[in-house]
Amino acid sequence: MRIDLNADAGESFGPWTLGADEALCEIVTSISLACGFHAGDPVVLRGTLQLARRAGVSVGAHPSYPDRQGFGRRVMQLSPRELEAMVLYQVAAVAGMSRAEGLRLRHVKPHGALFHLVMRDDEAADVFVRAVRSCDPDLCLVGHGGSALARAGQRAALRFVSEAYMDRTYEADGSLTSRADAGALITDPLQAAAQALDITMRGCVRTRDGSRELPVAAETLCVHGDTPGAPAIARAVREALERAGVLVAPF
Amino acid sequence: MRIDLNADAGESFGPWTLGADEALCEIVTSISLACGFHAGDPVVLRGTLQLARRAGVSVGAHPSYPDRQGFGRRVMQLSPRELEAMVLYQVAAVAGMSRAEGLRLRHVKPHGALFHLVMRDDEAADVFVRAVRSCDPDLCLVGHGGSALARAGQRAALRFVSEAYMDRTYEADGSLTSRADAGALITDPLQAAAQALDITMRGCVRTRDGSRELPVAAETLCVHGDTPGAPAIARAVREALERAGVLVAPF
Amino acid sequence: MRIDLNADAGESFGPWTLGADEALCEIVTSISLACGFHAGDPVVLRGTLQLARRAGVSVGAHPSYPDRQGFGRRVMQLSPRELEAMVLYQVAAVAGMSRAEGLRLRHVKPHGALFHLVMRDDEAADVFVRAVRSCDPDLCLVGHGGSALARAGQRAALRFVSEAYMDRTYEADGSLTSRADAGALITDPLQAAAQALDITMRGCVRTRDGSRELPVAAETLCVHGDTPGAPAIARAVREALERAGVLVAPF
Amino acid sequence: MRIDLNADAGESFGPWTLGADEALCEIVTSISLACGFHAGDPVVLRGTLQLARRAGVSVGAHPSYPDRQGFGRRVMQLSPRELEAMVLYQVAAVAGMSRAEGLRLRHVKPHGALFHLVMRDDEAADVFVRAVRSCDPDLCLVGHGGSALARAGQRAALRFVSEAYMDRTYEADGSLTSRADAGALITDPLQAAAQALDITMRGCVRTRDGSRELPVAAETLCVHGDTPGAPAIARAVREALERAGVLVAPF
Repeated sequence: MRIDLNADAGESFGPWTLGADEALCEIVTSISLACGFHAGDPVVLRGTLQLARRAGVSVGAHPSYPDRQGFGRRVMQLSPRELEAMVLYQVAAVAGMSRAEGLRLRHVKPHGALFHLVMRDDEAADVFVRAVRSCDPDLCLVGHGGSALARAGQRAALRFVSEAYMDRTYEADGSLTSRADAGALITDPLQAAAQALDITMRGCVRTRDGSRELPVAAETLCVHGDTPGAPAIARAVREALERAGVLVAPF
Repeated sequence: MRIDLNADAGESFGPWTLGADEALCEIVTSISLACGFHAGDPVVLRGTLQLARRAGVSVGAHPSYPDRQGFGRRVMQLSPRELEAMVLYQVAAVAGMSRAEGLRLRHVKPHGALFHLVMRDDEAADVFVRAVRSCDPDLCLVGHGGSALARAGQRAALRFVSEAYMDRTYEADGSLTSRADAGALITDPLQAAAQALDITMRGCVRTRDGSRELPVAAETLCVHGDTPGAPAIARAVREALERAGVLVAPF
Repeated sequence: MRIDLNADAGESFGPWTLGADEALCEIVTSISLACGFHAGDPVVLRGTLQLARRAGVSVGAHPSYPDRQGFGRRVMQLSPRELEAMVLYQVAAVAGMSRAEGLRLRHVKPHGALFHLVMRDDEAADVFVRAVRSCDPDLCLVGHGGSALARAGQRAALRFVSEAYMDRTYEADGSLTSRADAGALITDPLQAAAQALDITMRGCVRTRDGSRELPVAAETLCVHGDTPGAPAIARAVREALERAGVLVAPF
Repeated sequence: MRIDLNADAGESFGPWTLGADEALCEIVTSISLACGFHAGDPVVLRGTLQLARRAGVSVGAHPSYPDRQGFGRRVMQLSPRELEAMVLYQVAAVAGMSRAEGLRLRHVKPHGALFHLVMRDDEAADVFVRAVRSCDPDLCLVGHGGSALARAGQRAALRFVSEAYMDRTYEADGSLTSRADAGALITDPLQAAAQALDITMRGCVRTRDGSRELPVAAETLCVHGDTPGAPAIARAVREALERAGVLVAPF
């Protein structure tokens, strides 16, 4: 059995620091780098790529709507032409900077409101995938299994990597508990480790209210860089998985 | 005899249009594309690359300080670390988007205040060249012959392409007439054509006051996209050169 | 009979010019100034205020979503707290700069996608009005008669000024013809003048297909600064109105 | 004897937090608010004004070069026209938002590289003062005693408030120790309190190397919001001053 652990990274900007990139790079096996549209800037991006290289972590791009003030979490209505060009620009910038650091960009995972759009909207997902593919047809896509993005990736013959969460709870309908609700975040490392083991070894997750088990297939488990105690959570998850004999390695 | 004609391009932004990219792409043989820091955005950049592909024009990146409001023409004191990361980001973005359109990025020419910095400052020129080289060691540098950038390019074994102007006058010390002075711009197509012939065929240029001839070596002649009547100037220059038997083609 | 003529103004940005502010300020009686979020910058804003002062034109603020690249025309989902603070900031900046030029800010008219939001959404309109009112309770609101903004203004005891268009056609349901459809823009000065006379003197407008007359009440008629030939349209409208004995003056 | 204690505030941006505004507002008597150009945004600005109102703290504007990524600390060459318009816009925005919260803007203190410019350059200081004055001639200016800004304020009949630092050391020539040098920051609350007492009660400060006492006149003492332990430093300073019988109150 094998799983990848991923974290968002490079979400600082100018004088402002966010996340625990250095600590997380010692624990996870993949990171998704902010591309400068919702967070990150060239200096931050380069520093984070250098961290990744030293830690031997696999790197991906985390493109977003162009909205720093809203951290890419506000819905914006872009035309397909705008969306495609923006994704292309961001992936190209991070891919090229990765190459300059001797790394190969491995995956693309949409961020924030754009993530939610391409999980459910087939047309937008096709646009997104077209942009990624035109940058590099060997890139993997990361998102929810069974999503619009997964289908679009299949149509375009791009590898799709399904993701589940170690630090978020699930509702009975399979969706994540809304961040607006209590209990949406898992901040207890032991609870996160238990959920990670369930997903990885048994392909299921217990719902937030404990009433049901849902089937969840995942090749990578995400910890959000801004979840309080993210490094402790990721460490507990990794240790539990390795103790159980799971190989923790990039997809 | 052979010469390249180049123009800056892709300097529109969002709702705002600047330059005559479509007309110029029919006349010049190379364009330098704004990368989104002083001008351009992903939609503009992509559209301009598609223009270039249809017209068979060679493409380069035109990186700048991060200053849209000042169009990259205001001096900004960046640290070497900031400068390197910013040039890297911009060149990577344009190189990747070029590749996605089936084009190969061929050159890098700094813009505005950054251009003036790397023409005269050896340390900044080394930083600039390091960024370009780490993106792609086959890229050419474009700038004034004999400049700090030319020396830095030589140290790093990057091809340097020297540029002269068809639409700007020269002072007796070899510098361009300041844009603040009358007569700095050549807007008469015949005068531009005469200067282009002098530079290309005789390796010299007559100074603004007509008093002297200066030696000028150039492999490419620039027309600024925002010079009034730029397409007419470029057309007159091209026709005069071809009539004189000069091969007008990318460097 | 009396009517105000208004135009959007100050929509240039840095090196990029948009609109015909100087010509329009000689014709219209009110302008709505971009505040720096979708267009405009401090230099442009100040220059446009100076134009307005010299021309004796009444000034208003034209706040927007924070989206230069999309010119404020892309829907963005802001929280009420974000919306209120952003409108407040923009109106405060323009009001203070107006005062510094010896002018009194007279009205606020939302721009682009924000305009459409507060025309139809009562909650957003209340937020918008609260922001305007906390800046200055003597400010007027400008928008469609009968809109959510008109109702919100009434609840907050702010004067509401209803607007109709000299350069846009109307559909049978009273809405404007979508910019995506042919015939949405009126670019013939005579047609614009005829529509302006209908609205001002008879309180009605003929629909695009000519089939019906709709009742339209307006205290101000708008010409969009980016409509081709905007100054010629505004001049024809003004002359026709004055010839018909209508007083053209600020509301 | 009487002194004001001031801190920079409102330097968070979007998702990024900086400084300890809430804690500092309980201790200091004046704050200088980022205006959205180097830090701050409308939501942050409004929240900080509400903090200030609840804490009874006097408010000022802290205008900057337009450079978020560089936090306003990078030199930029603006023309006088650009500088004046930018200061005007920022002060107008913060003054208007203050008024909307029931507060009166009391002072303006330039930030970062702009601060250093107007401390030494008389022409730039005149431009700065003209912008401030045209917003509100009752505003105070804050800066170093004897600086170009102090002289420009005097010429324009604006009150100038001289500032010294509780958290920075001084060199023998009266300048602050460069942030690049060890010992530039005072992070020991007791050392800060001793320096604050020296400045306030004896009008002098001991140089970093302890060799000399320099005369320093100050009506306000600054603590930087990003100095480690800023609230503890400010509290120790305030307690020491009050114990010594100094009235700590806004200028």
